[in-house]
Order: sequence, then C-alpha cells, then structure tokens
Amino acid sequence: MTTKNSAQGLLQADEIIHARWVVTVDRQHNVHESHGLVIDDGRIVAIDDSTTIQEQYQARKITHLKDHALIPGFINAHTHAAMCLMRGLADDLPLMTWLQEHIWPIEHKWVSSDFIRQGTEHAIAEMIRSGTTAFNDMYFFPDVAAAVASAAGIRATAGLIVIDFPSAWAGDWQEYIDKGLAVHDQFRSDNLITTAFAPHAPYSVGNEPLEKVRILSDELEIPIHMHVHETHDEIDQGIKNYGSRPLRRLDEIGLLTPNLLAVHMTHLHDEEIVRFSKTGAHAIHCPQSNMKLASGFCPAQKLVDAGINIALGTDGAASNNDLDMLAEMQYTAMLGKAVADDATALPAETALTMATINGAKALGINDITGSLEVGKAADITAIDLSELETQPLYSPVSQIVYAADRRQITHVWCNGNNLLKNRILQTLDIEKLKSNALSWRQKINML
Amino acid sequence: MTTKNSAQGLLQADEIIHARWVVTVDRQHNVHESHGLVIDDGRIVAIDDSTTIQEQYQARKITHLKDHALIPGFINAHTHAAMCLMRGLADDLPLMTWLQEHIWPIEHKWVSSDFIRQGTEHAIAEMIRSGTTAFNDMYFFPDVAAAVASAAGIRATAGLIVIDFPSAWAGDWQEYIDKGLAVHDQFRSDNLITTAFAPHAPYSVGNEPLEKVRILSDELEIPIHMHVHETHDEIDQGIKNYGSRPLRRLDEIGLLTPNLLAVHMTHLHDEEIVRFSKTGAHAIHCPQSNMKLASGFCPAQKLVDAGINIALGTDGAASNNDLDMLAEMQYTAMLGKAVADDATALPAETALTMATINGAKALGINDITGSLEVGKAADITAIDLSELETQPLYSPVSQIVYAADRRQITHVWCNGNNLLKNRILQTLDIEKLKSNALSWRQKINML
Repeated sequence: MTTKNSAQGLLQADEIIHARWVVTVDRQHNVHESHGLVIDDGRIVAIDDSTTIQEQYQARKITHLKDHALIPGFINAHTHAAMCLMRGLADDLPLMTWLQEHIWPIEHKWVSSDFIRQGTEHAIAEMIRSGTTAFNDMYFFPDVAAAVASAAGIRATAGLIVIDFPSAWAGDWQEYIDKGLAVHDQFRSDNLITTAFAPHAPYSVGNEPLEKVRILSDELEIPIHMHVHETHDEIDQGIKNYGSRPLRRLDEIGLLTPNLLAVHMTHLHDEEIVRFSKTGAHAIHCPQSNMKLASGFCPAQKLVDAGINIALGTDGAASNNDLDMLAEMQYTAMLGKAVADDATALPAETALTMATINGAKALGINDITGSLEVGKAADITAIDLSELETQPLYSPVSQIVYAADRRQITHVWCNGNNLLKNRILQTLDIEKLKSNALSWRQKINML
Repeated sequence: MTTKNSAQGLLQADEIIHARWVVTVDRQHNVHESHGLVIDDGRIVAIDDSTTIQEQYQARKITHLKDHALIPGFINAHTHAAMCLMRGLADDLPLMTWLQEHIWPIEHKWVSSDFIRQGTEHAIAEMIRSGTTAFNDMYFFPDVAAAVASAAGIRATAGLIVIDFPSAWAGDWQEYIDKGLAVHDQFRSDNLITTAFAPHAPYSVGNEPLEKVRILSDELEIPIHMHVHETHDEIDQGIKNYGSRPLRRLDEIGLLTPNLLAVHMTHLHDEEIVRFSKTGAHAIHCPQSNMKLASGFCPAQKLVDAGINIALGTDGAASNNDLDMLAEMQYTAMLGKAVADDATALPAETALTMATINGAKALGINDITGSLEVGKAADITAIDLSELETQPLYSPVSQIVYAADRRQITHVWCNGNNLLKNRILQTLDIEKLKSNALSWRQKINML
C-alpha cells in the first residue's frame, strides 16, 4: 500500500469515491450505505462510512456519487468481441444455419487483424458503457484483441483459439496452438491480460488437439475456455462421431478440471451435473444467446444447488445482440425461475454474484477482482439509481438486477483507471468507432 | 383532413417529421427510408419520401430525425399502472405468497385515490419515456387513472375492475359494477379514454358477476380484460372449485368472444388453443412477469400458428419490474424461440407487430392507432439508432427488437401531441414524480 502520512496527518491516496451504496459482493454480501471507497495505486485501500473516510484520507480526485450504487465491474465470462461488427446481420435462424450460411462465409471473407482490431475496440467501448471491466474472449487474432484491450485499459482473457479448420489466423491445429503459445508469451507481463486455451467446441476440435491443450494447460496453469453442450445437435453429433455425449468425451480426455470453463451447458442429465460438480469445472451461462438461437435451457438453479460455480457471458453480439451484462443478469434471474418452475430460484443477489465474483473465480483472477474488498484492484462500476425507472427504491440490488438499464451506468474504473466518466468514454473515441462500424457494414453488405 | 392550400400552393399541416426510417407496421410491413410523416389535427395525413413531402407540405413545426426510426407508439395491453409504487418491494417470491403476504396487505393499507393518482402518473411518465402511447389498465379507482392519463395526453383503456373482495374502491361485486358503469359514462366523450370490464381472475370472481359482465359488455360493446390461466395453481383451484379448467368455465359462461382479452395464457392444452382460436378472443402475453413469478410458459408461437391475435403487456412494475415495451418485445422474441425450440419462431417483425397493431386490435382501437398509416392518429415513437450499441446497422427492425434500449427513445407523439421531446417529458413534471415516489416509499416502508 502506497498511502503515506501528509502534513495534516491524513493518509494520501489517488482517489476517493463517495457513494450512496457500496454493493460489495463480498462473502457476506455486504451492502453499505453512504460509504467512501479509497483507491491508491490501482487498488482498493479502504471502504468505510464516508465520515470516517473523510477523517482519515485525502486524495487529488474526489468523486461524489450521491444517487449511485458502486458494484464490482462486471466480468463477461464468454464473448467473441469482434463479432459485434456482425450484429443483427442474420437473426431468427438456428445455430448451424446461422453459422454455416451467414457467419462463417463472412468470417472467411473479412476476418483480418484490422477487422479484429476495430471490432474489438467497438465491443470494448460497448462493454465499458455497460459496466464491464473484464471479458473472456474467444476469436481469431487473440494477440490483436489483447493489445486493444490493454490499450483501452480493460482486463481481458485472450482466448488462444484452436479449431480444426483454417482461418486467416492459422492453418491447422498445430499452428493454432503454436501461435497461441506465442500470444501467451507476448502478454506474460501485461497486468491486464491473461490467457486461456480456447478450443472452439466438441464438434470442431478433434481428440489430438484437445489432448495437447490439456497438457499445455496443466503446464502453463491457464484455463481452457470451450463451448460445451450448446445444442442438442452437438450432442447427437458427439454420439454419432465419438460414441458418447460431449461432456463424457471431454471427461475421458481429462478436461473436466478446475481449469475448464464450459460454456452453455444445456441439455444436461442429472448425473452429468453430479459428475461435473465433482470435478471443480466452471459453467458459463449465456441465457440470451441460448434463447435467441433456441439452443436449449441451462438448468442454472440445479447447477447452483450442485455447488457448481456458474458465471455469466453475453456470447458475441451477433447472437445476443448486445454485450450488456446488466441485461444478461436480468435474463438469468428471469429465465432461471421459469426453468426451475420456482419463483424463488436465482434471486437477484445470486445473479449479481454470477455476473461478478463467479466470473473472476472461473478465470482464476478472484484474488484480483470480482468484488469490492480492500486489497483487490479497483474494478468498479457506478449505477445511478435516481432515474424514474428505478424509483421508488426499496432495495438497491433488486433495482440493479430487475429495473436498471445500461444507460444508468455513469462511471467505470478498471485497475484504478477511470474508463467511463459521466457516461463519457475516457480511453476510446466513440465517433471513430461509429465511423469504422459504418465502413464495415458497407463492405460486408456487398458480400 | 384539415390541410388547405397556402399562398405558395403548399398544403398546410401542423407538423412534419422527417426520419431516416419509417417502420409502418402496416399490412405489408413496409419500412420506408428517408421519409416524411405529416401530422394535421392529430392525424397522419401523409407519409412519403422526404423530397415529395417538402414539395407538397409546409408546417409550423418541422422535426428532422436523421438517425431515427419512427415506429407506431407501443400499446401496453396489460398493466396495473399505479403498482409501480411497489416496484422491487418483494421479489423472488411465488405469485400467491407475493400477493397474499406483500402486495394485498400494502394495498389494503395504502390504496386510495391519491395512491392511484401519483402511482399512475409515475407509470405514465415511465411508459412515455419508453415509447408507449396507449395502455390497458386494471386497478382500483379507474376514474382517477383515466383522468390522469387524459391529462397527460396518453391513450388508456380504463379497467372497470370487478373482484369478489372489498377494497377502498368498492364493497361488493355489485358496487364494483355500478361504479364501473359510472366511470364508463364519465369518459364517454374523452377521445383518449376507452373502457373495458376488468374482472380480476377466475379465482377471484364468481359466476354471477361474470355473467353480469358478459351481458353488459355485449350491451355497451366494450372489451373484457381478465387474467386467465396465469398459473398452474389457478387451474388446479378452478378444477377443485368449479369442476373444470378456467378457460372451459369462461367458455361455458359465454366469455370467449372477440371482446375478451385473456391475459397470460400459460399451461394450455392443444385443444384449448384450437377452441380459443375459433372464438376470436385475444391473448395478452406478459413474458417478463410470467418468468419472474415462474407462472409458466405461454406457447406464443403456437398461438400465432393457430391464428390467435396476441398482444403484449408488461404487467405491473411490481412483478416485472418495469413498464418497458421494448424490453417486453425482446423477451417475447427470445423466450418464444426457446419455448418453441425453434430459432425461427417469433421473429423480430412478429414481436413488433404484437407490441403495436395487435394491441390495438385487442382493444378495438385499430381503426385509430397501432400502425403508421394515413388516416390514423399520430401515435408515434422515435428511436435513435445511431448509438454505438445499435451500430453497425443491417436492419432497423432487428436493431429495435434485439439491440436498442429505452433510452434511445427520444420523441413520442400521441394523437399528434408531442409528449416526449429530446427525452424531456412535455406533460409531466419528473422531479415532482420522484419526490412523490420517495414519500410513498417512506410511508409503505413503515408498514
């Protein structure tokens, strides 16, 4: 801690934020009223009632957010950031038609490092504007995506993609892995960037590359990020091609460990849930994508009951069609009740936990982020709850999950840096992003 | 049409709106680009390309919305407006616990004409800010709600509530009906207000009042607005108390006619859907409320396939927790696909139709509103699609349903009057509404 005594006997810090509520998402789910949060050297050094903070600390920057709740920055545990350039291009189609007839041909023609750079910048701007401070990405050119994230000041887990077909990024699985390892080395000392192997899905990656990924993941101690049981088709195909349901095949390869982030997890048998829970693997739930593509239902409350750590992801904006974790939390709570046939399932607080600390646990960064606690990085989102739509206010957590929208997010800090201030992006040029998006639309529409 | 020739040979009108897109929701689902819409005497008198409009019309007010889509104002086909004062007061509970232990005791203590006035004003402000120009209400003191709506300039169907237990509004069903008839007479000449009988639900209204309502609805030619098949409990109770499922009982009483708006419609047998479709009755779908209360799934695509007219409602903000029809459309499209197990179900255009013209049909006001067509009232919502979150833009309808949020709604007109202008309410004082909401929270929290 770099705080030091000043002439007045006050501890010196970089920034103090006073807020009406501090929703910590700590182990006790503490919600503090009229508290101050002190940031120094990128970290949270104190959280206490505003009077105490004022008596103990001084800072160059003091922000008063009298109608706001501070919450941990959201952790988007599954996305394909650059795909936001294809948002709304092909809707109301099943997964395989959508992929084979629309997304893959466009990717084949257009995906390049430029596409990834501009698409990821657009996505990051959208994520910051909706309160996200870390995202787990899976797409081509992960080096470009990671560089863009680092420059914009947001945390990212760069997905070292592995897939059995060639792309502009790599030609075969060995090249995918080799290039992935180089990306891992490249960002080793970047304190905002971590890496994860990202074998695409059971139907698109064979056993040999999966075994290699498992070995390397153990050696490097990095997570494995993979679509698992997204659709019924995937399961049928798994049985046909490998003689077993995909989860079982992954288990046999040794992939079900605390390193695995299994994304989607629909169409689960009860015994699969029991087995999964024993392995310490993490489930990533993407309710909007699952609904929009009619992929199936993830039995989220059952996974919670089994003790499985579930985090939330938006999936790509081409199948969502946004990168809004507030909306994803609301869908999680709503759909969770409907699927469980129980209105007490997936309460607001659980949804908030899934959108924050659970994502950090899945990505192995929960020592650093995911909750507002002294010693953690200052990854913070402020939501203005004074709008008509969040009044009257009986419970801040209820209003955040069930009533607030992304435009009520006014400030975002990541690692102590202010990325959004009174709704204005501090590290990205929004007009340039819009003009880039327009250019890509014009190109892609010519296909 | 009151347009007339001016000195320059141009037709004179009250207002011209030029917009990047006009999403008409007419029979052909026309979406026009760079068009002008001309308003005179509260009605749409022309829609044509902007150049043609400029050559033919002049107006005192001309509004240029270069990044916006004009769509028909939303029709919220089921709400309990004043309940927004109880938003977020009790979440994550089953319907009957929520009603019996939270909502009903608070209603018993607090519901009064003042509560209704201030709660309905709050709800109307929220509805206007999210693009709604007509709502179908069911609550106590419908005279107060209707007067508030008329003064604020929004269309409302006042629900003449009938329920088998006493309230601050009436003591027994005969008094409910008598007072309802008086409200019907009171607003007969108000061109923004219509009325509908609103018998609460099969479990809360007996056969005698339902028969009386049927007779009066036929005589007065007004709709009947009722919760029907909201939960499995309701159906079980119907079988126990009346020997048949509620839909069958209502059919036997003669209530299944084109006058009926049956709200919720979950847990339906296929033969019930067939029977319902033959009667011309309307279904009102409230996906967010159904999910949040774990009430069950309305098989929306099946109803569409059977030719049933389905409209959308938010339900009250106490069980939603907002009055946002954009969000309700998105949930409808998303949940519709998941429930139908078909990603092509409930496409964006169908959801938009349900949120606009289908609501007008259900309420019997489709000659007046529900689509942007010459001769209809100027009930119009403008959405700014230039925000980062709705770029790039391949299809305006996709962006409206899947990507836009309520804060992108910038302008609203109802009957030609501008109710929202650059996000500013024109007929309601937002600061006063917030201060009223705070007072009610303080009172209700003391219970």
